[in-house]
Amino acid sequence: MSKITQLKQKLERAEIEAAVLSDPISISYLTEFYSDPHERLMLLFLFQEESLLFLPELEVARAKNFLSLPIVGYSDSENPWAKLKTILSKTDFSKIALEYDHLNISKYQGLKSLLSGQFTDLTPFLDRMRLIKSPDEIQKLTAAGNLADKAVQIGFDHISLDTTETDIIAQIEFEMRKQGVDKMSFDTLVLTGKKAADPHGLPSTKRLENNSLLLFDLGVQTLGYTSDMTRTVALGQPSQFKKDIYSLCLEAQLTALNFIKPGVTAAQVDAAARSVIEKAGYGDYFNHRLGHGIGMSVHEFPSITATNDIVLEEGMCFSVEPGIYIPEKVGVRIEDCGHVTKQGFQTFTKTSKELLYF
Amino acid sequence: MSKITQLKQKLERAEIEAAVLSDPISISYLTEFYSDPHERLMLLFLFQEESLLFLPELEVARAKNFLSLPIVGYSDSENPWAKLKTILSKTDFSKIALEYDHLNISKYQGLKSLLSGQFTDLTPFLDRMRLIKSPDEIQKLTAAGNLADKAVQIGFDHISLDTTETDIIAQIEFEMRKQGVDKMSFDTLVLTGKKAADPHGLPSTKRLENNSLLLFDLGVQTLGYTSDMTRTVALGQPSQFKKDIYSLCLEAQLTALNFIKPGVTAAQVDAAARSVIEKAGYGDYFNHRLGHGIGMSVHEFPSITATNDIVLEEGMCFSVEPGIYIPEKVGVRIEDCGHVTKQGFQTFTKTSKELLYF
Repeated sequence: MSKITQLKQKLERAEIEAAVLSDPISISYLTEFYSDPHERLMLLFLFQEESLLFLPELEVARAKNFLSLPIVGYSDSENPWAKLKTILSKTDFSKIALEYDHLNISKYQGLKSLLSGQFTDLTPFLDRMRLIKSPDEIQKLTAAGNLADKAVQIGFDHISLDTTETDIIAQIEFEMRKQGVDKMSFDTLVLTGKKAADPHGLPSTKRLENNSLLLFDLGVQTLGYTSDMTRTVALGQPSQFKKDIYSLCLEAQLTALNFIKPGVTAAQVDAAARSVIEKAGYGDYFNHRLGHGIGMSVHEFPSITATNDIVLEEGMCFSVEPGIYIPEKVGVRIEDCGHVTKQGFQTFTKTSKELLYF
Repeated sequence: MSKITQLKQKLERAEIEAAVLSDPISISYLTEFYSDPHERLMLLFLFQEESLLFLPELEVARAKNFLSLPIVGYSDSENPWAKLKTILSKTDFSKIALEYDHLNISKYQGLKSLLSGQFTDLTPFLDRMRLIKSPDEIQKLTAAGNLADKAVQIGFDHISLDTTETDIIAQIEFEMRKQGVDKMSFDTLVLTGKKAADPHGLPSTKRLENNSLLLFDLGVQTLGYTSDMTRTVALGQPSQFKKDIYSLCLEAQLTALNFIKPGVTAAQVDAAARSVIEKAGYGDYFNHRLGHGIGMSVHEFPSITATNDIVLEEGMCFSVEPGIYIPEKVGVRIEDCGHVTKQGFQTFTKTSKELLYF
């Protein structure tokens, strides 16, 4: 059954007659057609009896290669809302679902002037569909993970005291491009020494610091799916304290990875890692959630936080990334993404987590 | 006068007591502090008597380096809306302005449950402020343009029949990174032969075609501002027809560039270029607007379309990019961005537009 049909059935059971999708990633999830219309309007109308993709004229030809449903384009000199008014055959519904986490107020007002009925949030339906990954999706996430492993290895190969954070990033992204990767999942981070102690530090032309830790956080996009991983390695001979913080972070990560299985909650997984760090007295320095869902977006559901009681199921995919950031001293983060299996959790990235020395 | 004060004065004149900003670029425009909170909540509250930046805890320390206004963070395990309820001293206003082109419905509902008053659109106020660039902004846009000129030159230097579209892109982005550029403004396009005939074609590992045209469309981001340029060059000996289409596109672009001055409308500028192409019988093959505004965003106001009657003023910045796309045959686009001056238009990019042969 196509994903559009699946969604329509879910909506029908909830007595929702119509849905309008606006997020290019949601549209791509349902149709395999991806287009970023930037500030232009792109909407996928799903009515019980019909569907319609409405988008900039320039994209119509490409969309037709993917989709068998009706496609209508508009040019830059047309008012898209006025055009929609002339082409929608039915505009009156009991309930209409919109993407509340994506649709902006301007477009919401446009749709309210076009369609009448009670509006409701489509997000939970899509989140639920996207939350449990199919074997095909897990294969794509694994492919993205393999590429991330390669990318981080390229980074390792370029570690030298003569190089800078941004030089290493340039090398990683260059080699990835050469291997056919269109896009990194997010801005690659390479952070040396004290800079790694800022969980939102930004890379610069700073040379790598000797006798310290070096952090890589990166991901690539492939086949519409993303990866995300972090490794922290040693440069020269870091102090025993830095090595101890590394070991603690690794213990927290492994504890969480081993804890995950169907039936436990996200909050319990967060607690499994956090309690290791707290017991050692560094709880205040692990100041973010343990992880985030991953799929077509690098951040999606489920969020692995202290307060999320969602019960994990086979096929859910997320990151496990404890971090310990002691300002001006040391920063460590270790991250793998993976999927919940029948018995446990399988990571998409395989790069060693023993502290590596360069 | 600070930009926050300027905005507050404009709002006061419109009898708007409060504004809440959600777009990271708008917040950066007003404060010079940029942060992309991804799916997390970040809001800048501007009340007549006070201001408050509310954002993820991880970003608080960095924000404090930029801003003297009150900053409050929330952690991943806190409910940001509940926290906001406890910290806002005043929540009842006559009129409250929100960014209708940015704020999604979920956050809109969050704000509606937090603040009472009549909601109105802040977008026109910000658009108007951002529309006219200051000399400092024009300097930054010129710097971004200079880097784009360098980037396209790197592309030219790597043209060879043994290379592919993506290889050239990898080289351009690698060299830009090495020069300290963090980010391209958008996905770099290098399109060979027939692929350039699709205005939304995507680069691949296709080898460059001989005796055809090759299109580069790229931009870089620097100091918070963007650039965007397109050049089309010849590889080998393209047919006379292809060269004629190039000349026609260039004539259209130069006609528009020479036409621009304060007092004319965007629609007139679009018509100046379009009529050149229409008179030659190729109007149907120029199927997009002539240009888009540029600044901190690569696409912003004003839009240069056949239907936009906005009167141009000194300091407005936008692209002039006619294109002629004859499917399966030839594609040409020539683009410069620039700023309206007292007497005319000054481009940010200077790379030659004579047809270059490689």
